[in-house]
Amino acid sequence: MMRYQRFLSRLEEEELDGFVVTRPANLEYLFHFRGSVGAALVLKGETALLVDSRYITEACSTARHCRPCLAPKSLDQSLQQKLKKACRKSASALRIGFESDFVSHDFVRRVESWDLPIRWTPASGWVAELRMIKQPEEIRSLKKAFRQAQAAFSQAMQEVEPGLSEVEIAGRLEWAMRRQGADAFAFETIVAAGPRSALPHARPELHKWKAGQVLLIDFGLRLKEGYCSDLTRVLLPSGGLPGKVSQIVREARQKALQAIRPGVQALQVDAAARDWIDKQGYGEYFGHGLGHGLGLEVHEPPSIRPRSELVLQEGMAFTVEPGIYLPDRFGIRIEDAVVVCKDGFEFLSDPEA
Amino acid sequence: MMRYQRFLSRLEEEELDGFVVTRPANLEYLFHFRGSVGAALVLKGETALLVDSRYITEACSTARHCRPCLAPKSLDQSLQQKLKKACRKSASALRIGFESDFVSHDFVRRVESWDLPIRWTPASGWVAELRMIKQPEEIRSLKKAFRQAQAAFSQAMQEVEPGLSEVEIAGRLEWAMRRQGADAFAFETIVAAGPRSALPHARPELHKWKAGQVLLIDFGLRLKEGYCSDLTRVLLPSGGLPGKVSQIVREARQKALQAIRPGVQALQVDAAARDWIDKQGYGEYFGHGLGHGLGLEVHEPPSIRPRSELVLQEGMAFTVEPGIYLPDRFGIRIEDAVVVCKDGFEFLSDPEA
Repeated sequence: MMRYQRFLSRLEEEELDGFVVTRPANLEYLFHFRGSVGAALVLKGETALLVDSRYITEACSTARHCRPCLAPKSLDQSLQQKLKKACRKSASALRIGFESDFVSHDFVRRVESWDLPIRWTPASGWVAELRMIKQPEEIRSLKKAFRQAQAAFSQAMQEVEPGLSEVEIAGRLEWAMRRQGADAFAFETIVAAGPRSALPHARPELHKWKAGQVLLIDFGLRLKEGYCSDLTRVLLPSGGLPGKVSQIVREARQKALQAIRPGVQALQVDAAARDWIDKQGYGEYFGHGLGHGLGLEVHEPPSIRPRSELVLQEGMAFTVEPGIYLPDRFGIRIEDAVVVCKDGFEFLSDPEA
Repeated sequence: MMRYQRFLSRLEEEELDGFVVTRPANLEYLFHFRGSVGAALVLKGETALLVDSRYITEACSTARHCRPCLAPKSLDQSLQQKLKKACRKSASALRIGFESDFVSHDFVRRVESWDLPIRWTPASGWVAELRMIKQPEEIRSLKKAFRQAQAAFSQAMQEVEPGLSEVEIAGRLEWAMRRQGADAFAFETIVAAGPRSALPHARPELHKWKAGQVLLIDFGLRLKEGYCSDLTRVLLPSGGLPGKVSQIVREARQKALQAIRPGVQALQVDAAARDWIDKQGYGEYFGHGLGHGLGLEVHEPPSIRPRSELVLQEGMAFTVEPGIYLPDRFGIRIEDAVVVCKDGFEFLSDPEA
């Protein structure tokens, strides 16, 4: 069944008359609309997609399952008008859902102040739940995103050597991603040399990468069809403590991978890696969750972390990224991505590249 | 007076006991914290900055006017604990403000469900109002961001010629921005050739730029100190309709610039450009607002658009970007940025480069 149909079925199950979709990735998922701002009003199985003048031409040519409408003054105003009309036609109050995990408190106060016979109904994560289970064509797109990103990485690494700054290294990698046809970068490229690699989310600085230092690179691209890659690779001096720590991180990854299959809880996968790192004495240096879902957004459900009781299902795609960060010394993180299959998992990335 | 002090004065004026700051750019503005997620609990003039393990090292070394605290499980849980403690110490209910234009509806439902003696008080745009008036050091940073972006642009344009794809052109420009030391890109680079330039927010495609076509490039970088540039340049075939339209856009810009000074309403500046374009017969092809504020974020108040009654003040920084978009033919937008001065305005960008 198509995404949009599945969404409509959910509305029916929950006895809603309509729904307002505003999260950009949800607009992209349901309606193939890729603007930064828009609002879809789903009402009794028909959808009006409200966009501003920047996006109307695009919306008319690419959007599906909806009727694109130019909002001449503001999305709010057009939404209000359309709802007013719908309310007039309806004998009873309308139950309209909204993305309560995304829209601001002010948004809800505004729509409630319109004083229409509407029962605004908070709905958290409904589209995210659909998006969480990837369909075959989505898995193909994800694999393509990783393939392009990894091709860019090996291209860029031919020119990367000690003496370059973090910013220059990021620039070379981004340029290689563009040459691979990246539609956009999935997130701000992280390049961190030496002690800065111990900061899990370091922004690249003018600071140079010196020979013998760890170099951590976390990068991703987005395809035109919207799917994101997210990978972390580390260049290591041979041997020494970084070599030892890297070995432990690899083993932790292996433990996690062995735990992945339908029916297992996300926290069990996290624990498989975390317990191993803990046993080796580095537990306190692995502070973040093991992984996160990815798809149209680079961070989306499911979250693979200590308290996540979510049960894995076939088609869930997520990163596996154990790390050990020794403050003021160095950090090692290895990040690949997988999709859950009937018997276990399949890599979306090439773990050897 | 310092930013943080000004913010505390506002809390006092509004008779609040505390405030929860979560918008990343507000955390950066008030506390010099640059992580993607965090929560500052301002309580009786003291602030605890709650961050997760990814950011604790950075927060401890860079954050000001606050005490960084690691949130061992989740920001929510740490926030709840700190508030519980504060409530125990207080004889009466605490009035705590929150960014109602930023936090989600679910966030508010969660904090209200904690059932503490707290009167949660929606506060929209308080920090944005402070941020809107740029101080001299911020204006210096903005100028630096534009200088670096324009240096990158002229560097990149030496290598850009018809036959390259939009994606390749974006890649070259981004690489040049990195070489100028860009900490990040302020937004997704827009490169649109030929008819695609009529889409105001086109994403670059593999589509090639052909000789004789309009090429529209909208790009920006962010400095390490956080400030953003945002510029649009158009390469034109000589003469013809594009030349004529470009002339009208330039004249519209001139009209807008002449209107800028303290005491004028934003809508008057917008109207100065819009009326001119209208008079030339292209009114229906200029659908977006004339400009937007920029600073730590690339889109922030003030908004320079038809219904904005906001009165300009010295220190407000914003873009001026009239455009005319002829569907399926071409689009022309020229975007520079200014800061309002005592007697008028000063350019942040070099309008001739």
